[in-house]
Amino acid sequence: MTEDDDSVWTETTSLVDIRRDLHAHPEAGWKEFRTTALVASELDRLGFTLHLGAEAMAVDERLGVPDESELAAARTRARDENAPEAMLERMGAVTGLVAEKSYGDSGPVVGIRVDMDALELVETRAESHHPVREGFVSRHPKEMHACGHDGHTAIGIGLARELDDQSAFDGTLKLFFQPAEEGGRGAIPMSLSGHVDDVDCFVALHLGLGNATGTVIAGYDRPLCNCKFTVQFRGQSAHAGHAPEAGANALQAATTAIQNLYSISRHSDGASRVNVGGVTSPNGHNVISDHAEMMIEVRGETAEINQYMIDEARRITTHAAKMHGVTHDIETYGKTTTFKSDDEMINKVSTSASTVDSVTNVLRHEQFGASEDASYLIRRVQEQGGKATFVGIGSDHPDGHHTPHFDIDEASIRIGVDVLSKTINRL
Amino acid sequence: MTEDDDSVWTETTSLVDIRRDLHAHPEAGWKEFRTTALVASELDRLGFTLHLGAEAMAVDERLGVPDESELAAARTRARDENAPEAMLERMGAVTGLVAEKSYGDSGPVVGIRVDMDALELVETRAESHHPVREGFVSRHPKEMHACGHDGHTAIGIGLARELDDQSAFDGTLKLFFQPAEEGGRGAIPMSLSGHVDDVDCFVALHLGLGNATGTVIAGYDRPLCNCKFTVQFRGQSAHAGHAPEAGANALQAATTAIQNLYSISRHSDGASRVNVGGVTSPNGHNVISDHAEMMIEVRGETAEINQYMIDEARRITTHAAKMHGVTHDIETYGKTTTFKSDDEMINKVSTSASTVDSVTNVLRHEQFGASEDASYLIRRVQEQGGKATFVGIGSDHPDGHHTPHFDIDEASIRIGVDVLSKTINRL
Amino acid sequence: MTEDDDSVWTETTSLVDIRRDLHAHPEAGWKEFRTTALVASELDRLGFTLHLGAEAMAVDERLGVPDESELAAARTRARDENAPEAMLERMGAVTGLVAEKSYGDSGPVVGIRVDMDALELVETRAESHHPVREGFVSRHPKEMHACGHDGHTAIGIGLARELDDQSAFDGTLKLFFQPAEEGGRGAIPMSLSGHVDDVDCFVALHLGLGNATGTVIAGYDRPLCNCKFTVQFRGQSAHAGHAPEAGANALQAATTAIQNLYSISRHSDGASRVNVGGVTSPNGHNVISDHAEMMIEVRGETAEINQYMIDEARRITTHAAKMHGVTHDIETYGKTTTFKSDDEMINKVSTSASTVDSVTNVLRHEQFGASEDASYLIRRVQEQGGKATFVGIGSDHPDGHHTPHFDIDEASIRIGVDVLSKTINRL
Amino acid sequence: MTEDDDSVWTETTSLVDIRRDLHAHPEAGWKEFRTTALVASELDRLGFTLHLGAEAMAVDERLGVPDESELAAARTRARDENAPEAMLERMGAVTGLVAEKSYGDSGPVVGIRVDMDALELVETRAESHHPVREGFVSRHPKEMHACGHDGHTAIGIGLARELDDQSAFDGTLKLFFQPAEEGGRGAIPMSLSGHVDDVDCFVALHLGLGNATGTVIAGYDRPLCNCKFTVQFRGQSAHAGHAPEAGANALQAATTAIQNLYSISRHSDGASRVNVGGVTSPNGHNVISDHAEMMIEVRGETAEINQYMIDEARRITTHAAKMHGVTHDIETYGKTTTFKSDDEMINKVSTSASTVDSVTNVLRHEQFGASEDASYLIRRVQEQGGKATFVGIGSDHPDGHHTPHFDIDEASIRIGVDVLSKTINRL
Repeated sequence: MTEDDDSVWTETTSLVDIRRDLHAHPEAGWKEFRTTALVASELDRLGFTLHLGAEAMAVDERLGVPDESELAAARTRARDENAPEAMLERMGAVTGLVAEKSYGDSGPVVGIRVDMDALELVETRAESHHPVREGFVSRHPKEMHACGHDGHTAIGIGLARELDDQSAFDGTLKLFFQPAEEGGRGAIPMSLSGHVDDVDCFVALHLGLGNATGTVIAGYDRPLCNCKFTVQFRGQSAHAGHAPEAGANALQAATTAIQNLYSISRHSDGASRVNVGGVTSPNGHNVISDHAEMMIEVRGETAEINQYMIDEARRITTHAAKMHGVTHDIETYGKTTTFKSDDEMINKVSTSASTVDSVTNVLRHEQFGASEDASYLIRRVQEQGGKATFVGIGSDHPDGHHTPHFDIDEASIRIGVDVLSKTINRL
Repeated sequence: MTEDDDSVWTETTSLVDIRRDLHAHPEAGWKEFRTTALVASELDRLGFTLHLGAEAMAVDERLGVPDESELAAARTRARDENAPEAMLERMGAVTGLVAEKSYGDSGPVVGIRVDMDALELVETRAESHHPVREGFVSRHPKEMHACGHDGHTAIGIGLARELDDQSAFDGTLKLFFQPAEEGGRGAIPMSLSGHVDDVDCFVALHLGLGNATGTVIAGYDRPLCNCKFTVQFRGQSAHAGHAPEAGANALQAATTAIQNLYSISRHSDGASRVNVGGVTSPNGHNVISDHAEMMIEVRGETAEINQYMIDEARRITTHAAKMHGVTHDIETYGKTTTFKSDDEMINKVSTSASTVDSVTNVLRHEQFGASEDASYLIRRVQEQGGKATFVGIGSDHPDGHHTPHFDIDEASIRIGVDVLSKTINRL
Repeated sequence: MTEDDDSVWTETTSLVDIRRDLHAHPEAGWKEFRTTALVASELDRLGFTLHLGAEAMAVDERLGVPDESELAAARTRARDENAPEAMLERMGAVTGLVAEKSYGDSGPVVGIRVDMDALELVETRAESHHPVREGFVSRHPKEMHACGHDGHTAIGIGLARELDDQSAFDGTLKLFFQPAEEGGRGAIPMSLSGHVDDVDCFVALHLGLGNATGTVIAGYDRPLCNCKFTVQFRGQSAHAGHAPEAGANALQAATTAIQNLYSISRHSDGASRVNVGGVTSPNGHNVISDHAEMMIEVRGETAEINQYMIDEARRITTHAAKMHGVTHDIETYGKTTTFKSDDEMINKVSTSASTVDSVTNVLRHEQFGASEDASYLIRRVQEQGGKATFVGIGSDHPDGHHTPHFDIDEASIRIGVDVLSKTINRL
Repeated sequence: MTEDDDSVWTETTSLVDIRRDLHAHPEAGWKEFRTTALVASELDRLGFTLHLGAEAMAVDERLGVPDESELAAARTRARDENAPEAMLERMGAVTGLVAEKSYGDSGPVVGIRVDMDALELVETRAESHHPVREGFVSRHPKEMHACGHDGHTAIGIGLARELDDQSAFDGTLKLFFQPAEEGGRGAIPMSLSGHVDDVDCFVALHLGLGNATGTVIAGYDRPLCNCKFTVQFRGQSAHAGHAPEAGANALQAATTAIQNLYSISRHSDGASRVNVGGVTSPNGHNVISDHAEMMIEVRGETAEINQYMIDEARRITTHAAKMHGVTHDIETYGKTTTFKSDDEMINKVSTSASTVDSVTNVLRHEQFGASEDASYLIRRVQEQGGKATFVGIGSDHPDGHHTPHFDIDEASIRIGVDVLSKTINRL
């Protein structure tokens, strides 16, 4: 791959090259036009039936969608970077893909979920950074694959290629290429698309997470539930010298809310979290603030604790606004829930992983420290009677997830394909 | 003037056309490159000695200067809009002009101050707005002459032209074309340039201020003192889910500061004000804020009350930072003080104004409700033994100062020139 | 008077001895049982018609009344200190007295208001303190006449005695001996009793106020309006270790309210004030607070500004409670309004004062810096068509009002009687 | 026992009657004069060597000691209620007792700790309450044995009696009758008295804790660490109307501290807690607060988390004071730490408990949900090389600990004596 090569993949493009191409063209949540289109083309070639964009997602259930002009710009960029036009057209303004293929009638319906979105982060230009040395560092100024989703997507394609040549699996494979995992925005609309309702066995996967290459976690569970809100306070501006009493101060509403949000009582049933990361009040020194925006996140170890935090946050925000005579609007930006991996699936993955040569360490169970929106897909499958697990594929990484120096060990892509394809063959 | 005409003025360009050209090309504080250069060319032609940029300003005393890239862009824009290149070169990166001319040895040194900067505001495009109808609405997307400084500058040029043909005045005229009046940023560096130190008689002026065309206020005084700060809090980011305790929360420092700033006790000696208009914490929902910026303004009816407010604001800000383990930096963005116009000057202006036909109403004294940075120039003159006044020239205006619909009555430009030239001839 | 002498006054008891007896037996607001009963006995002897307790006050309009057990204890104490039993019985549980006497049919109805209550303050025992040296320091541990109301009451009695021997006055005299002036609690119920409705000329008076003995202020006006609230927040206690989330934290409601009360915006029309003086949350270290009480005061230079402060304070308090899921109760503890003395009355007082030998300095007008609940009586008189003034009688005082070392110059009592009796004779 | 019987115990007084006598005369922390004196007399009779008051406690290390007048009143009350005078004199102003007796030279030094203090709580008068029916309800208005320490003390005496007739134990028994367990105030000074330094085997015990009569917990561990502070803010009062700016507002310091204390970040290593229960600002509505007191408690699942909470609380409090220009004083009121019971001791207790007929259920290990100041004694023993455990003796209780309806099942007193005496015989 060279710097000016934006040509599409062919059937001989290796998984590592696919991963590098995705890494060089990262697309943040709901902007995965190029990624979706390229994956769709590849799976089309492999004989999969495609459900693209609005056919893959319950469109109205999407959370945290950027405004139209941003989406349009991302779509234009994808076209400029050689995304297949036909697929772009089928997608419209909505990213995401469900691809399915039947290998026989007697086996189960198996769902595999891989996420495709990048983060809004500036990738390092340090020479020590592998993507810099090999020339596939991000070409997009403020986007970066800093969580390994480029590798996840490559594994999804690898599975599609692998299963083609296999004979043991005798059921239907559904590949869920999910957009907007970051922030917890894309899993709910995919879980409500109808496509997971007949899935018997479901696997979501993640590279890295502090595990070395060769380690496999057969079943993660108990992630923290979370919920993200974006709040707008709208008041009345006034001249802070001439008539301060004529204002309705949106910033005072925000600061009162923030102070009290951080003060939400700890919960004796388990861990909780609350944070306000971003605040903007775009007013001059001498203007009573007429608008303030704030970005809240709450978490809970259980769904009940999370709901407690949400309820408290909403009540505090509402009365902070009313206290200062301003209006407010609370919009859910994203959310995740918790889950428990099923023992049946853990057994299958665990046994299969043990047969892969490059796997040196199989752990049945781990607790998931962070939040993960695959939670909604897993719970939907379980509610419909299916079984599910969240699998960790170890991958040496030089720095933490969501940092400018993050990278994966590309050897883990092959391991992921092998572990999952063997698992599918056992189902 | 036509939409595509950016050509420079000639000696026959009327004051009204000059004002319209300035109105169409508004330049916010410290960006007055085109304005300064055009004014300098005109005064050069009229035989004035020019002190431009760093020769007119104590450069290190400037407050609230935009960063270099912004200044460079403004300078480029001025060049693109036909600002005389020679003057741009003499100015360098610093705007502002002191122009002086001697008319004789026996008279006093007279200083006249006019301010040149525009506001960061979007001008209305309504058809009812005179600059729209006549085609001289602002061509700069977010800048607008919404305080009449375009008219002030035109009056300054008018005086230079007028005095040329006069014989009565037998002293030295110094015209102070001041940048960055808005925010209280440009008067201090001009007052410390040395150029005002030998001024015997000083007049600053303002159009409008709620006075109808034909009214003249011979001496405003007692504006509120004010001071504007921009504060940076810098902490340590952390993942709000994984390790919130590892962060040092800059936003909590800011909110604690804001709550307590608004709580500064009223002062029994007179009016005080405090406001925080702008706040920015550019962090995601799930990131402990590592940076928050806030914009504070305090005011006081007297210098002592203003100082009390400043001292309180600094102490609160400092301990809000220390309470949350973050560093802070308090930068003065701008400030103004108070003053009292001298009776001698009020008498001269009052008598002169009475002889101008179009002046229908002369008021000796008024209290100035707002803040004004000419205060520093006036006090400097008075400290050196000179006499000063701040004159109001009535001008019908359809909407308040600093609003998108503000406009002046162009007839008031001529009145301003007449009142001041007659005053100078009496000195 | 000796330390163990609690006997009632006789017709030969001097005004100074009456004042000293009152000073030794100070009674705080609504507890003036002994004072009222003794005054009533004296005026009964002088031929006045008495309206006592509920006959002098619109009982339901009283503000800031202590609870029944406190009132009962004060009544018992009065009895123990030789308050005339017959008067105590006529009073019941309500203090206050209106005494009237007709001197003829042709003159006006004249009302004079003197206040009788003491402060809750510990009087100094320093030997330098005149009441200590002369043996009439307060015998009540936490009550003290530290505002001169003992002198006011003595002046009221002096007037009643003086008028008896006079012939010039040919109208009706109404003496209003008002309870509970401190805190602004007693004037409203007296103003609504009906007794002021036919008053043609009204005078309230005050000793001291920074004026030396010999000075008379014929008309004070423009006191600050104020309003005092006592707020109860009631929540749900919980063990702070075991189940903090089960609590509804009354103290958090109070602290949120307090922070935001101090943050009420300044008003550009004039001075405003806000304070929270007292707070009590009587819970242990490890108990989520189930109850918090706070004492608020707001003030405004005009009735409109005062109302603005009241409205803001109520809204903030309400939403601080709702934000924390606790109930709240806002009770008005006391209030005062503003007024303007009438020129007609100022003229009469001014002229009369000039004829009193010991008066050395007469000022027609002064602005009243503090708050004063006679405001409600004055406005009631003015609304019904009468004329009123608030008179200052200078009295050297060694320390400020409301301090443990406060004392009056007893010579000013005679001056007060003389100025007012001469004024009445002129009406 | 009858209502008017305050006579001292004799050698035939049963343990149940002793417990009832203590229950009727509850003494809160550091006020256990009667309890200590009676226990000391009884152990003196049984041949124990006594270390009383300052001989049992490192006096300067005591936390949360009431002021002298309160202690003096408690001592007077004890005398009035027939506490043995000789013991009161030996105690002086300090409560607490270490009693030791040697039974032979070959065995270990065994320490048993029982706590003696009551809570500041009003005991119910409901007829359904056993102490009411049997006539031993608290005779002290605001004190109550609502945590079973009356039973603990009785068990301590029972052990002293029991061991007298035993022959198996061949070492030294040290009984630690500890004052002021509630609030975590008495264990540190006892742990630093020197008396625990040679203890080889140590047992602290607690009745109830949700365990039914017949259950024994051989080793509790992992209580939450906690720390209680009492903070004084001292500022400058001022008249809120005349000169609010002259004040230094202690209440604003407190409210700023409280808001930010509740906002201390959660810790990702485990549970934390923070509470402010009590606040007092004893100022009138119109006085700028010159004094505010607040009562803080923090907790942490580990000593490190507890220390993190302490450090944060101190920093916040310090800068809240400095922000408002007031002084502050932070006094530690009480504290506890965490511990782990030793397996050797658990084994001994567990085996011994199994041989007691009335014990029906022996649990080796439980986690202690609350905080407990025996933690300091246990850690001291362990640091010196000894072994320790915290034993739970089940006791049916009709309502929760620290509630007005709490009571113990008196049958559990005998069980406690039996389990511990058998354990001692095995050591």
